[in-house]
Amino acid sequence: MIGEVICVGNELLIGDTLNTNTQFLSQQLTELGIEVLYQSVVGDYEEQLLEAIDYAKKRSDVIIFSGGLGPTYDDMTKETVAKSLGMPMVMDERSVEAIEDFFRDLGREMAQSNLKQALRPEGGIALHNGNGTAPGVYVEQDKTHYFLLPGPPRELKPMFESCVKPILSKLSTEVITSRIFKLFGIGESDLAVKIGHIMDVSDNPRVAPYAKLGSVNIRVTATTDTVEEGSQMIEDMTKELMPFIGQYCYTYEDKELEEIIVEKLIEKRKTIALAESCTGGLLSARLVGVPGVSQVYKNGIVTYANESKIKWLGVDEQVLMDNGAVSQEVATAMAVGVKNVSDTNIGVGITGVAGPGGGTKEKPVGTVHIAVAYDDDVYHTRLNINGLRQKIRDYSVQRALMLLFEILK
Amino acid sequence: MIGEVICVGNELLIGDTLNTNTQFLSQQLTELGIEVLYQSVVGDYEEQLLEAIDYAKKRSDVIIFSGGLGPTYDDMTKETVAKSLGMPMVMDERSVEAIEDFFRDLGREMAQSNLKQALRPEGGIALHNGNGTAPGVYVEQDKTHYFLLPGPPRELKPMFESCVKPILSKLSTEVITSRIFKLFGIGESDLAVKIGHIMDVSDNPRVAPYAKLGSVNIRVTATTDTVEEGSQMIEDMTKELMPFIGQYCYTYEDKELEEIIVEKLIEKRKTIALAESCTGGLLSARLVGVPGVSQVYKNGIVTYANESKIKWLGVDEQVLMDNGAVSQEVATAMAVGVKNVSDTNIGVGITGVAGPGGGTKEKPVGTVHIAVAYDDDVYHTRLNINGLRQKIRDYSVQRALMLLFEILK
Repeated sequence: MIGEVICVGNELLIGDTLNTNTQFLSQQLTELGIEVLYQSVVGDYEEQLLEAIDYAKKRSDVIIFSGGLGPTYDDMTKETVAKSLGMPMVMDERSVEAIEDFFRDLGREMAQSNLKQALRPEGGIALHNGNGTAPGVYVEQDKTHYFLLPGPPRELKPMFESCVKPILSKLSTEVITSRIFKLFGIGESDLAVKIGHIMDVSDNPRVAPYAKLGSVNIRVTATTDTVEEGSQMIEDMTKELMPFIGQYCYTYEDKELEEIIVEKLIEKRKTIALAESCTGGLLSARLVGVPGVSQVYKNGIVTYANESKIKWLGVDEQVLMDNGAVSQEVATAMAVGVKNVSDTNIGVGITGVAGPGGGTKEKPVGTVHIAVAYDDDVYHTRLNINGLRQKIRDYSVQRALMLLFEILK
Repeated sequence: MIGEVICVGNELLIGDTLNTNTQFLSQQLTELGIEVLYQSVVGDYEEQLLEAIDYAKKRSDVIIFSGGLGPTYDDMTKETVAKSLGMPMVMDERSVEAIEDFFRDLGREMAQSNLKQALRPEGGIALHNGNGTAPGVYVEQDKTHYFLLPGPPRELKPMFESCVKPILSKLSTEVITSRIFKLFGIGESDLAVKIGHIMDVSDNPRVAPYAKLGSVNIRVTATTDTVEEGSQMIEDMTKELMPFIGQYCYTYEDKELEEIIVEKLIEKRKTIALAESCTGGLLSARLVGVPGVSQVYKNGIVTYANESKIKWLGVDEQVLMDNGAVSQEVATAMAVGVKNVSDTNIGVGITGVAGPGGGTKEKPVGTVHIAVAYDDDVYHTRLNINGLRQKIRDYSVQRALMLLFEILK
């Protein structure tokens, strides 16, 4: 079955509101085995909405609308869908009661304009709104299923769960199963060379790589009749892919890199401390974002100034003078230093030129040194990152996590 | 002029990626005086994309595409737009060089497939990508302007700023001027009561409040024929609004709260050091994100474990035992402690229960204490935040910045 999401509202068109409903609805439809092929947004204008409904009914089996069910004159989704389907509007008595109850519970007087919300297309069913005044609507015509939902996410989500999902579950006969392989150390184009022969012939399951900051993921999606077939197809494809991507793949579970690192640290009973300069605490914040990190994380120190590197980490002033703050030597001294002063098994040091100022010919903006001291060993990597301050910082953190992962593997 | 945004990518259709590009592009077009009437998303399929281009060219003057410019076979935006416009593809020599340079700078070998990215429709212009390998494209045909931009926001945004905006500014005859008032300490509904009488009659300039994490902004947008008229309209509205919002408004310049704080610190010649527990370095990272922060920021210490609070900040073990780590007393001891050991004018301490575990009846998940030691004074605030770990952390950082701003004001 083909699905389509249409959001209605000028606040989306001018970019005032971030459209999170479309993402939510698309995720839900996909999980129900309905293939979403179109998402669109139109304004609060009848003509535009009629046009969108016209396109949609020709190509989609399930059409979900969000927004435009409220009491004001520019809320017109219901009226316009009814017009497009040639259905008159009727007053839904149960909805009238529900709206009156809603205001009574709030202790507020009800403006008569609210009754507009109780209208529904004849032949449609009103969907109860437990979190607001505007009921939703479900209509079927010519085997196309129309769901009209309110715009506010806190009304739309529960209504989808309680009213829409049960109806759609009965309609859809397909099951969608997917797995995401998270990789690093390989670019999207090199990956395409390695697994191109699989991608080219993979229609179901579909194999699609996509780039993330400093890394590439592969999504494998299977469309089947049963959950068992789907799982089997994904397992088979995993076996086919792994010989080519195994060395780059750090997980195909729903986990972030920092979670895997924290798990490995706990498993190996290793403690960690961090010394950050240009990243300013971002690496620390990523690790501390993982629940349970307190078992392995001792402390992080942000030593932005040279003076702090000397004072807190015991970096030798001469080493700073001889090599400059952004150097392999200082990153190493920071890693070893923070490991020693914190009495941990592992210490990480990051120092770099995040810009916009501070770059030189030898060390341009984007030069970053990362060192990891692990027991008696030290690992080091140097990055040359193209981009702005925020990207340089984010990418450095990602690469530091990758280095940690490599070492802990 | 009518504008339209078309995003291309299956990751959007299945709801894996939140579509932030559409919001960004729509905001930008609106500010440039181009009325966005349509937003849509289609998958990586030629037929669908051709259909979308077909609809768009009939109704829009400016069409912005995002995504599908990468090196793999399922990246097909350029090829499909070229097909729709009847233009052959040619190799753009300058783009070839730029891509080769990009890989040389990274020290990585370039897969030949990357050269696909240097192709452009004949008659189109390549737009330089300073943050990735895929150049954008600008084509004009029959007075319709097509801009093809890369999908990753970090590449799309700078390309829009540097390449697209200058072209669009010349096309549009209307001038849109806007100003954003950033507020805190007031909710959206209370604000609506305070300025409702202005909002109701404001059509041009339009006055629209919108909620942000822990705060509310107001956007004032004027549509005029000249820049002067627009500026005057914005100034007049500022005078009208300020009596009602002045006490909540921390800026109406294009600045983040942390930038204003760093400016104030520099102006007052005050230095700062941070001690973070549940926020794990996020506050530090926000401040260190501001260029020039080194003049005032000395260091940040992430003391997640009690042991670290004692060792690094000199927090009294008895105070920890008597009050628990999440308490006004410990936040204060952290703030004063980090100020003393770092020898700064200001110290900040944050300690809280970020969850998911660790909550008690007296101190449920979301309890956060923030203290600021400023010379001989200590300021304190206690938060009870509803939400998940990440929201609790982000909101705590925002509130810590607000407290600092209040104190420095």
